[in-house]
Amino acid sequence: MKIAIVGVGKIARDQHIPAIQNSLDWEFAATVSRHGSFEGIPSYTDLATLLSERPDIACVSLCMPPVPRYDYAMVALNAGRHVMLEKPPGASVAECIALETKARDAKLALYATWHSREAACVDLAREWLADKRLRRLSIAWCEDVRKWHPGQTWIWEAGGLGVFDPGINALSILTKILPVPVRVVAAELSFPENCETPIAATLNFGHPDGAEVTGTFDFRQLGDETWSIAAETDGGNLILSEGGARLMVNGVERSPRVPDVNQAMSGEYPRLYANMAKLTNERRVDMDLSPLILVADAFLIGRRKIVEPFDK
Amino acid sequence: MKIAIVGVGKIARDQHIPAIQNSLDWEFAATVSRHGSFEGIPSYTDLATLLSERPDIACVSLCMPPVPRYDYAMVALNAGRHVMLEKPPGASVAECIALETKARDAKLALYATWHSREAACVDLAREWLADKRLRRLSIAWCEDVRKWHPGQTWIWEAGGLGVFDPGINALSILTKILPVPVRVVAAELSFPENCETPIAATLNFGHPDGAEVTGTFDFRQLGDETWSIAAETDGGNLILSEGGARLMVNGVERSPRVPDVNQAMSGEYPRLYANMAKLTNERRVDMDLSPLILVADAFLIGRRKIVEPFDK
Repeated sequence: MKIAIVGVGKIARDQHIPAIQNSLDWEFAATVSRHGSFEGIPSYTDLATLLSERPDIACVSLCMPPVPRYDYAMVALNAGRHVMLEKPPGASVAECIALETKARDAKLALYATWHSREAACVDLAREWLADKRLRRLSIAWCEDVRKWHPGQTWIWEAGGLGVFDPGINALSILTKILPVPVRVVAAELSFPENCETPIAATLNFGHPDGAEVTGTFDFRQLGDETWSIAAETDGGNLILSEGGARLMVNGVERSPRVPDVNQAMSGEYPRLYANMAKLTNERRVDMDLSPLILVADAFLIGRRKIVEPFDK
Repeated sequence: MKIAIVGVGKIARDQHIPAIQNSLDWEFAATVSRHGSFEGIPSYTDLATLLSERPDIACVSLCMPPVPRYDYAMVALNAGRHVMLEKPPGASVAECIALETKARDAKLALYATWHSREAACVDLAREWLADKRLRRLSIAWCEDVRKWHPGQTWIWEAGGLGVFDPGINALSILTKILPVPVRVVAAELSFPENCETPIAATLNFGHPDGAEVTGTFDFRQLGDETWSIAAETDGGNLILSEGGARLMVNGVERSPRVPDVNQAMSGEYPRLYANMAKLTNERRVDMDLSPLILVADAFLIGRRKIVEPFDK
């Protein structure tokens, strides 16, 4: 099946393109980008031209920042194409719901991807937590924004999510590994004086059984990053670290049950593209908005703190 | 059917209690409030006591501010009671979804009320717009916060919504009268230096046919309030004013088709309680979250502006 990448930026080059090139399901057929292109692949500068000139490309994968994503997705769905969305699936909850409605009505595949959910040890953590009673869980998602988001000025503009651009990855894992839903009950968001989005945040979650669930998100961490979730339960404790790639249970390292022997299928993005192939064949929608709703709720009910300007 | 009011504040006294007292469906059986009570009606200071001592009361109507509402609602649903929620149905989107899931699982009635949707001319506006092509729509929802929200300090605290406490009424009308969904594409929120919630906001909406849809919300208006929605279409123009109570079409005043001859059924809150009676009999859920999602999206993607302190 032929697929086009729309938005040839850092994430497309680092992850999407290699995943497609190594995939047995997909043929990398074209790119759409105002400025970028990829050697040896037909490139278009606008989506409308691709859609009209390339009826052979049934699927588009949207890798641009969240704010412009909706318009591209709606145009592609209106042209009868299947759509795969980088995370977050849109800049707002309402626009994601509108896309979902459209895709279901048109019987097209639509996939709100959450790449961190495909990290090697996430399923193992979910299985381990399934029959435990949670007492405490804390997320620490801290990284150096200059190291991980060089030149991504959109992250500081309204709708760019700030520290929740990576932080939503933690929330996508949280909502996958817990057997019950959580909700944000309090939040503090730190906005640099010169930015529209927060550079740091702390969240408190409500949990149906009263477990104490918290999150710390910070873009100001220097040196190594911390992407971990620690949980205490009535059956011991768990530490999911390195963004879901490593798991310790009661101090003992666990390995993913099924080793990734087939390199074409290993890694977060190869799994996303395998999932998308399945959704496309079945013309199905996978649009779990719960991580984005938690972020929207944090903005809605959070206290705002103005902190020192950030030198972009 | 017996019903209890939980949270005896301004809105309960002004609207809920008279509506219940004039209703043919409901018997005003009790109040729950830490401080308030209502003459001649049994009063409880906590919900748990009411739920255990009064199995005859099948339904509770929650009138406290949005932040504490979820805990009360979940306790009531867990005790097998039907629940009616003042607007907004909760402080966050995720908690409303959790309540909805619980009510559906337990086959209990749950009603996210939006009182402005029951204003006299809202249905007429919806019917008139149904077959028109919208070109432009603007909301103006401006009022003097000191006149309409005396002593409601929670409105300025995190989760209190600020100007969106009344503004969500406009959004509840908007989402009822338009035949298609809209989404927030840009917002500017003005936060007083000393408040956690905005005192004013402007919103720009995306509309599927490209109509220009905007909203202005302001708590700083002195004198008379403005609660109006004006629309231009290919078939003329409409002005819905006084919070939905009056409708002008092409300059001519329209009257609600069915005059409210039965006084017990006239007005927004009497209609809400009639709707709740029907939901309770049918053990159904009516939980349209679209107005709250638009507000959450405005906070999520909005630009923040700090304005002069508000003297609460």
